[in-house]
Amino acid sequence: MAWTTALTELLGIDCPVVCAPMGGSAGGALAAAVSRGGGLGMVGGGRGERAWLERELSLVTQETTRPWGVGFLSWAVDGDTVARALEYRPAAVMLSFGDPRPFAGRVREAGVPLLVQVTSLAEAVQALDAGADVLVAQGTEAGGHGGGRATLPFVPAVVDAAAPTPVLAAGGIADGRGVAAALALGAAGALMGTRFQASREALVPARVLKALVEGRGEDTHRSRVLDIARGAPWPARYTARTLRNDFLVRWHGREAELGADAAALEQYRAAVARGDTAAVPVWAGEAVDLINGVDSAADIVAEVSAQAARALASAVRLS
Amino acid sequence: MAWTTALTELLGIDCPVVCAPMGGSAGGALAAAVSRGGGLGMVGGGRGERAWLERELSLVTQETTRPWGVGFLSWAVDGDTVARALEYRPAAVMLSFGDPRPFAGRVREAGVPLLVQVTSLAEAVQALDAGADVLVAQGTEAGGHGGGRATLPFVPAVVDAAAPTPVLAAGGIADGRGVAAALALGAAGALMGTRFQASREALVPARVLKALVEGRGEDTHRSRVLDIARGAPWPARYTARTLRNDFLVRWHGREAELGADAAALEQYRAAVARGDTAAVPVWAGEAVDLINGVDSAADIVAEVSAQAARALASAVRLS
Ligand SMILES: Cc1cc2nc3c(=O)[nH]c(=O)nc-3n(C[C@H](O)[C@H](O)[C@H](O)COP(=O)(O)O)c2cc1C
Ligand SMILES: Cc1cc2nc3c(=O)[nH]c(=O)nc-3n(C[C@H](O)[C@H](O)[C@H](O)COP(=O)(O)O)c2cc1C
Repeated sequence: MAWTTALTELLGIDCPVVCAPMGGSAGGALAAAVSRGGGLGMVGGGRGERAWLERELSLVTQETTRPWGVGFLSWAVDGDTVARALEYRPAAVMLSFGDPRPFAGRVREAGVPLLVQVTSLAEAVQALDAGADVLVAQGTEAGGHGGGRATLPFVPAVVDAAAPTPVLAAGGIADGRGVAAALALGAAGALMGTRFQASREALVPARVLKALVEGRGEDTHRSRVLDIARGAPWPARYTARTLRNDFLVRWHGREAELGADAAALEQYRAAVARGDTAAVPVWAGEAVDLINGVDSAADIVAEVSAQAARALASAVRLS
Repeated sequence: MAWTTALTELLGIDCPVVCAPMGGSAGGALAAAVSRGGGLGMVGGGRGERAWLERELSLVTQETTRPWGVGFLSWAVDGDTVARALEYRPAAVMLSFGDPRPFAGRVREAGVPLLVQVTSLAEAVQALDAGADVLVAQGTEAGGHGGGRATLPFVPAVVDAAAPTPVLAAGGIADGRGVAAALALGAAGALMGTRFQASREALVPARVLKALVEGRGEDTHRSRVLDIARGAPWPARYTARTLRNDFLVRWHGREAELGADAAALEQYRAAVARGDTAAVPVWAGEAVDLINGVDSAADIVAEVSAQAARALASAVRLS
């Protein structure tokens, strides 16, 4: 199945499907598997932890000759780390959450396409100013960190604001119907996180895979509790969507109190050390409803791509 | 433009576009205009205020011979009112927000297709039990009252749970791209509220039309403040999405306090009497971003339908 969108043309890939650069879990094996499947795999560079990054970037270059990318958190990464990643010759760099401008120039000077993930129209304008080649319009149903807009109305608004710059849809997409909907909305493709987190190649323990297969969209919620418990200095406007658990429910709405409660924070650290699922949350978006098993990432790309083509073909027959 | 979906076949309409039964603002003129345009117009019966309902139902039967419908709030309406509405021979009855079972039998005995709007998978199961002929899966980006799920991942989950019962997508759809996305997700059509609220036939004052054209999705939010201020006994799980205003911002997160503050409630009533926009909110969904003018409802149906066909045709050419 070969598609032709502004994304596939820009990057020389077959399918308009991108795997989110999930910090820590999207390593070289997952990125390479998605890229071998015809999509764009991305190494999740997160804040830029150097040893992890170099290992996973080496791995992806060994495992595939297809285009792959790497993503970082704009609020946390530094220029040297971005420069180091560019030495591995990614086909794309993605910057999310925060101001991309300090790093955009370096990426563009290297001639590497720059994707910027945005959660509001103001961020979309900032990303265009920074010279982004592709915007990723992320809705609040997304797994992991994000903002407050919903994908379905947000994507066409970003498409209109960004034209002719291509836009990808992110948040709530876990099967071919979602990818088809993204294209119908005017996007050039879709970025999926939660779906690929539930893959054989993701760097996640078996209990997480099980929770993703069993979890329901209604069990997820957005909160700052997790970041406060971890002491992660995320900008407050980006909350994290995870499966709810006892710890999150207990502290929801009492974030300030939690931050000041040394005993509770210590309990959280102890629970993490034990791998206690009543405290350590599973990152997941509302689209977990659509995830019924753990497959290899290349198979996910193939299946999603075939289902997207079928969904569009049957929708177009209606008119 | 004639479409063929499970919805158009069931109701004998041309376009898979339904106007939401917006209480008080979707009167007979709006319902008739949407139906004349080839969609399904619906009178917004709300809680069932009798004089208003009889007037608007008479109007719609005078203004069109095409199929039209009527909708009620399940938590507030009574059986006699539903029975009275059935005497006007609607082509469909829609029940939203609350348990549809007390009214479902009466609608089905009359041989009238029953649409039930749902905001969670549990409500979808309940609606199927009640014998709904069509489910309307509503996402949190919707204008007016609603729940917490986002449309893009919620619709395919409801489609899977309801099959072979047809599903409509609602929430965040205001143009043909959204309708095309709904069909790609496996829905049999789309229900739009905010878009038709900004139409010539909606029973809304000019200041509301202006606010809808100027408003941005990021200016909307969900809250119970409005219902508490009005003393409207809505079930707490259904919050209302409106454009933010000073009053809503002031009381957000202090709902219990507001309910007990007689002076504040009196100030709200006085502001309503003055039509003060700093207090009286404008109901609107996130898709206000996509609304750039006020058209006649029949033209909106035609435009949305043509744009949906174009969006699907260009998306399918990509694969
Ligand atoms: C487990 C997980 C980790 C994530 N980590 C990152 C990250 O490090 N950087 C980033 O830009 N986005 C991250 N995201 C968000 C994704 O980029 C994307 O917006 C999101 O996964 C899309 O929604 P979906 O999960 O419904 O597919 C993460 C998402 C998940 C599920
Ligand atoms: C002004 C307004 C009033 C509404 N009133 C009702 C109502 O009385 N009954 C109902 O079932 N839904 C009502 N809704 C919700 C709609 O049924 C529908 O779910 C929603 O409009 C879809 O989202 P959209 O506004 O983004 O199109 C209302 C919506 C709006 C915008």
